[in-house]
Amino acid sequence: MTAAIDFYFDFASPYGYLASHRIDEIGERFGRAVTWRPIMLGAMFKAVGTAPLTTYPLKGVYSRHDLGRTARLFGVEFGVPEGFPHGTLPAARGFYWLGESDANKQKPFAKAFYHAYFGEGRNVSEMDATADIAASVGIGREAFIAAIQEPAIKDRLKAETNAALERGVFGAPFIFIDGEPFWGVDHLDQAERWLETGGW
Amino acid sequence: MTAAIDFYFDFASPYGYLASHRIDEIGERFGRAVTWRPIMLGAMFKAVGTAPLTTYPLKGVYSRHDLGRTARLFGVEFGVPEGFPHGTLPAARGFYWLGESDANKQKPFAKAFYHAYFGEGRNVSEMDATADIAASVGIGREAFIAAIQEPAIKDRLKAETNAALERGVFGAPFIFIDGEPFWGVDHLDQAERWLETGGW
Repeated sequence: MTAAIDFYFDFASPYGYLASHRIDEIGERFGRAVTWRPIMLGAMFKAVGTAPLTTYPLKGVYSRHDLGRTARLFGVEFGVPEGFPHGTLPAARGFYWLGESDANKQKPFAKAFYHAYFGEGRNVSEMDATADIAASVGIGREAFIAAIQEPAIKDRLKAETNAALERGVFGAPFIFIDGEPFWGVDHLDQAERWLETGGW
Repeated sequence: MTAAIDFYFDFASPYGYLASHRIDEIGERFGRAVTWRPIMLGAMFKAVGTAPLTTYPLKGVYSRHDLGRTARLFGVEFGVPEGFPHGTLPAARGFYWLGESDANKQKPFAKAFYHAYFGEGRNVSEMDATADIAASVGIGREAFIAAIQEPAIKDRLKAETNAALERGVFGAPFIFIDGEPFWGVDHLDQAERWLETGGW
């Protein structure tokens, strides 16, 4: 019972951002590694027939309110960036490239990106902006820009997204603990209890 | 700060059923009355552009799994009834009629109905089945059947649903504490904390 926790997220998901502040600490507490797995939420929306939360009438207004409230509860700096949602493919591709080239930089990069986007509210949709963030955590800017344009890295992100869909992932954050699925920031408490008790 | 908690639910909502087992106890602990307000979730789905949770690919499979898991955690008998979802308009109308005629019977009736539906998995869509449940908690069967066919009672349910929509309700369960909205069973913990702390 010491398999890694799988943490699925999209770099454009504000709830994923909030979860990213708690997931590693939860894993640590229970002696579990946490594997971060960025996916393309747009593909999920298409498969399920849904749309980004903030685009729905009523539900969108509530979710913005709830995001701010949950961020305050977590003690996490948060704002919905102007022009949200931006494309975050360069970040997701870069993350998988780092997994092959410099794995220790994966999480620092992901955290820096999320912080720039939802913590500082920066527009991070351009490749250049993403490369700047990569550079800020010690990743070679030119290598990063070259890598994320490689067909192999683009395919990798697609394959990860398809594999997630096949596993039943339809939103973010979405985590698996020994095969048990938990969707949403508001299920992290149940996930913790699952780790503590071994399930019920 | 002792206003009643508003508890919006649909008699066809399994997550509403789960919340109904906790909401009064939460209110009691913090010295708050809880006003139960059945609504027609179908009108919400139409306004928001969504559909019943269980009808979505992937999301539907997960939600059935999550419902069972949460029910076990709450220690509540639960199953998704065969043929779910059934129409539950007679129950919602009867509930509001009881508010005018015999208010002390409202919650016992609602709990008996929910238990028959999601606890025992009975088909409760027919007026007769609903009247049987009403009779089981001491409500006159004939009076119940007559009342829920009155235009005034039908209009009352529509008015309650529209008022909920205007307040921003788009799903169930949905509760308000001093104007602060909380959506979903998995937000009951935040709601409790709100009651405890007065908000953050």
